[in-house]
Amino acid sequence: MSKLLDDAVGELSRLPGIGRRTALRLALHMLRMEREDVSRMTQVIDSFRNGIKYCSYCNNLSDEDICPICSDPSRDRSMVCVVEQVGDVLSIENTRQYNGLYHVLGGVISPMQGIAPSDLKIDLLLDNIARGEIKEVILAVSTTVEGETTLFYIMRRLEQFPELKVTTIARGIGFGDEIEYADELTIAHAIHNRTQISRQ
Amino acid sequence: MSKLLDDAVGELSRLPGIGRRTALRLALHMLRMEREDVSRMTQVIDSFRNGIKYCSYCNNLSDEDICPICSDPSRDRSMVCVVEQVGDVLSIENTRQYNGLYHVLGGVISPMQGIAPSDLKIDLLLDNIARGEIKEVILAVSTTVEGETTLFYIMRRLEQFPELKVTTIARGIGFGDEIEYADELTIAHAIHNRTQISRQ
Repeated sequence: MSKLLDDAVGELSRLPGIGRRTALRLALHMLRMEREDVSRMTQVIDSFRNGIKYCSYCNNLSDEDICPICSDPSRDRSMVCVVEQVGDVLSIENTRQYNGLYHVLGGVISPMQGIAPSDLKIDLLLDNIARGEIKEVILAVSTTVEGETTLFYIMRRLEQFPELKVTTIARGIGFGDEIEYADELTIAHAIHNRTQISRQ
Repeated sequence: MSKLLDDAVGELSRLPGIGRRTALRLALHMLRMEREDVSRMTQVIDSFRNGIKYCSYCNNLSDEDICPICSDPSRDRSMVCVVEQVGDVLSIENTRQYNGLYHVLGGVISPMQGIAPSDLKIDLLLDNIARGEIKEVILAVSTTVEGETTLFYIMRRLEQFPELKVTTIARGIGFGDEIEYADELTIAHAIHNRTQISRQ
């Protein structure tokens, strides 16, 4: 009908999880926004896409060459938490339970999607470990087939550092999850790795 | 963490139905898109917001002063379908069942949201009708309290045109809806306005 509207809906509906109906709703909402607000939004998106960098130490998103976490002197530089993607860093940071460094792989090994080990930032991780400051590597990858494949691949590459402590985040029943709906593998693992409850 | 990411998430999460989590997912997706694709998207949004016009005849979105529907010689200019917003025009057009003109009110009367009759394009509708070409006005507004208020207000304003046929879209049980879950008012209306089924 209106080509301008059609084009806007077309572009917005290319985003994940946004169908044509939602795209139309977003486009019509933008008409009710002030022009300056819409143009600030598009400018911010452009600056983000064109200005963002990847930390040359941990591969996390950063405005500078070294990200704020890696350059923070209060962080524990003896441990590094290996995650799949940037969103995982944010999730773990939000818990405020971890004070070490991170290493963002940028995905998981997936022959189906054509992602080979060389597509991930694994060599950078090994280079960092080789410097000798890191004492523990926490592997915080998903418990999917691809995640486990990635985990075992990294484990094998880490064999060259026999002094290094390698851990993985605990697997078990999540808080708020019902055992009835958990899969057998998770339940089996959770029973096998049960923890003692303090009695007083 | 990254100010650029934070700003992008902040702007995206101002859109309706997009929380911070979804905004983060969209922002990270944009990093996987080509830079040119992201900048084309933002350009298209800017052109849309700054270039879109409202048809001076029916108040529909348009790239020109008169929208493609109003300037289409094959449309039936004797009937006008009054709708709340632009999206409604698209919904009705998609059915391909209507060949008349439209009139977009731009909302419904809502004292709660501070929307008065003067905020809607009702005078423009009356001006168009006064020209004498329009023989039927179809009121296709929502069956909400605000919609009904708007309907009755327009009905009263239309009293000055006694020759005009005024109709409203049929109310009843929607296709795919279960009677069990329909409200009493709808069921009562649907029974009262039952239609005879052809027996052969």
